[in-house]
Amino acid sequence: MPRIKTNFEQLAVGIDIGGTNTKFGIVDRVGNLLFSSEMPTRGYNDVNHFIEEMHKRVMPFIEQAGGVGRIKGIGLGAPNGNYYTGTIEYAPNLPWKGIIPFSKMVEDIFQLPVVLTNDANAAALGEMMYGAAKDMKDFIMITLGTGVGSGIVANGKLIYGHDGNAGELGHSVIIPGGRLHEGTGKRGSLESYASATGVCLTAIEMLENSDQPSILREVPKDQIDSKKVYEAAIAGDELAKSIFEFTGKILGMALANFVMFSSPEAIILFGGLTKAGDMILKPTREHMEENLLPIYQHKVKILVSHLKESDAAILGASALVWDLK
Amino acid sequence: MPRIKTNFEQLAVGIDIGGTNTKFGIVDRVGNLLFSSEMPTRGYNDVNHFIEEMHKRVMPFIEQAGGVGRIKGIGLGAPNGNYYTGTIEYAPNLPWKGIIPFSKMVEDIFQLPVVLTNDANAAALGEMMYGAAKDMKDFIMITLGTGVGSGIVANGKLIYGHDGNAGELGHSVIIPGGRLHEGTGKRGSLESYASATGVCLTAIEMLENSDQPSILREVPKDQIDSKKVYEAAIAGDELAKSIFEFTGKILGMALANFVMFSSPEAIILFGGLTKAGDMILKPTREHMEENLLPIYQHKVKILVSHLKESDAAILGASALVWDLK
Repeated sequence: MPRIKTNFEQLAVGIDIGGTNTKFGIVDRVGNLLFSSEMPTRGYNDVNHFIEEMHKRVMPFIEQAGGVGRIKGIGLGAPNGNYYTGTIEYAPNLPWKGIIPFSKMVEDIFQLPVVLTNDANAAALGEMMYGAAKDMKDFIMITLGTGVGSGIVANGKLIYGHDGNAGELGHSVIIPGGRLHEGTGKRGSLESYASATGVCLTAIEMLENSDQPSILREVPKDQIDSKKVYEAAIAGDELAKSIFEFTGKILGMALANFVMFSSPEAIILFGGLTKAGDMILKPTREHMEENLLPIYQHKVKILVSHLKESDAAILGASALVWDLK
Repeated sequence: MPRIKTNFEQLAVGIDIGGTNTKFGIVDRVGNLLFSSEMPTRGYNDVNHFIEEMHKRVMPFIEQAGGVGRIKGIGLGAPNGNYYTGTIEYAPNLPWKGIIPFSKMVEDIFQLPVVLTNDANAAALGEMMYGAAKDMKDFIMITLGTGVGSGIVANGKLIYGHDGNAGELGHSVIIPGGRLHEGTGKRGSLESYASATGVCLTAIEMLENSDQPSILREVPKDQIDSKKVYEAAIAGDELAKSIFEFTGKILGMALANFVMFSSPEAIILFGGLTKAGDMILKPTREHMEENLLPIYQHKVKILVSHLKESDAAILGASALVWDLK
C-alpha cells in the first residue's frame, strides 16, 4: 500500500457505523477530534453504494488534514463487527444482511489500512485512551442504549475471544425464564431489562400490574419510552422512579456476576439510560454490592463515561488504529 | 538471592495447598513430574510450623534433583491465593485465618523465588502448558469438586483482575433467590448447585419432594454424597439420573453466560463431578447451547481434563514458575 512519508504527526480516521447514522472524523494521538461529520446509514440497499458515499464524504477531511500520507489508518466500529475477520456478521440493526467483508471493502476504496471491531469494543478502547478508563488495565464498558453492549479489557487488552465475538454481556441470562427478548428469542437476558427498550417494557408491565397512580397513565402505551419515564421520575412520579429502581436492581445483579468474572477496577457505563443518574445508579450499586462476595465489595467503581456522546464513538473507532503495526 | 548457575536444565517446584492435604513435587519444563509426595495440611495451628515442615519434606527432593541451583523457583497454588500480593486471604477451608503473607514466608525459608495463585488458576495454567488447553489462548477452566473453582485465560494470559481476585465463577448467581450457600450466605450461586455438595443437596431435595422410587431412599440422608448418587445413576436409578440432569442444566446455563463473556475456544472441566461423564456432560452441553446466541453455538468445546488428578495440582502450581523473570 503506497504511503507518503511525512514528518507530520500521524492521524487516524474513526468511523462509527450506527443503525441510523454513521459518524466519522479525523483524530490525533491525544484524542482531539479535528474534523467530524455524519451521514445516514439507511437508504443504501447495496453496501457498496454506502461505502462509496462514505468515501466521498471522508476524503475531503483527509485532504484538509494534510492528505492520506498523514493517516495511519481507518478504525471502524460497527454492530457485530468482528476484529479477527474484518467482517460485519448478521447485524440485526443494519440494512445489509449476511456476512459482509466490510474491512476489505473500505481498505480497497481508501487504500489505507483498516481495522474493525464491534461498537462497544471501540467504545471501551476510546474510554481507555481518552476517557474514564484512562490508565486502567482491567475494566468493563457497558453501553446502555436501545440495546446493551459491552467491551471488556483485562491485562490491558480487549478480550476478543477465540473467534472475535467475546463480550456480549447484554445477552447474559440474569433471570432464567424471565422476559422474552423479541430479537433473540431468549428469556431473561440483561438486555431485555436494562436497555431503553427494557425500561419501556417494565413501564408497561408496572402500569398494567398495579393501580398505583402515575402521570405515565396519561401517555398512550405505544408512546411510552425511556425518556418519558425519565421525565416522570424527575417530576417525582413514584411509579416512574420504581421503574428505574427495578432496572438498576437487574443491572446490579448482572454487574456482580461480571465482577466475579474479571474483577475490574471499574465498570464504565455509557449511553442514554445513564442520563437517569442516581435514580438508576444508586440501585445498581446497591444490588451489585449485595450480590458480591466480600472480597470484591466496595472496590469496584461504577463510573459514567464523560466523553461527549457524539464524539465517543468516533474516538473509540479511531483508537483501534494506534495498535496497527 | 544467591543462585548457583549450572548448565543443567532448570526445574520447578510445584506445591498445591489443599484443605486436607498438601501435594508437592519437582517438575521439568515439559511437565514430567520427577518426584512427588504429600503431607497433611491440618494439624499445624501456626502457619510457620506448617511451612517449616513443608520445607523439611521438600528439600530432600530438591537435593535429589541436583540442588537449589537447578530450581528456577517455587509455584504455589492455594485456595484464595492472591497472585499480586502473594498472600492467602481469608481461606475458609484452611486452618489459618486472616491474611497470610505466604509467598514471603516460603521465599524466606527456601531462599528461592516464589509465585502464588489460587488453586483453580494454577490448574488452568497446568492445562495450558501440559493438558487439554495446550496451545489455546482463550479458555475457561472449571473445577467441580467440593466447591466450584475457575481460572480464565484470555489473550493467552490468566485473568487476575485489578486486585488478583478474578475468576470466582462458582459464586456467579445463576438462579436469583435460589438455593442458600451456607458458606457465603448468598442465594442461587453456581457452587450451590454444581458442586459435590450441591449434588448432595439436590438429591435430598428431590427425595423429599417426590415419591419416585429410588435406591437412594435406602441411604440415610446424612450419608448421601455425590459418589452414592453416581453409583445409583450408573445402576440405572432414574431419580439419581435426574439429579445429574438437573445439575448439568444449571451448569450449562452458567457456561452459556461465561461463553458470552469471553468467547473461549473450550471449557475444561476438572474434578470429582466429571466422573459422572455423559450423565452430567450431556445436559450441560444441551443447556449451554440452548442459552447461547447463535453466533456462539456449536463452537465451544466442553472438554474433561485428562491430567491425572493427583498430579494436576502440582503441575499447575509448577507452571507458574516458568513465567518468572
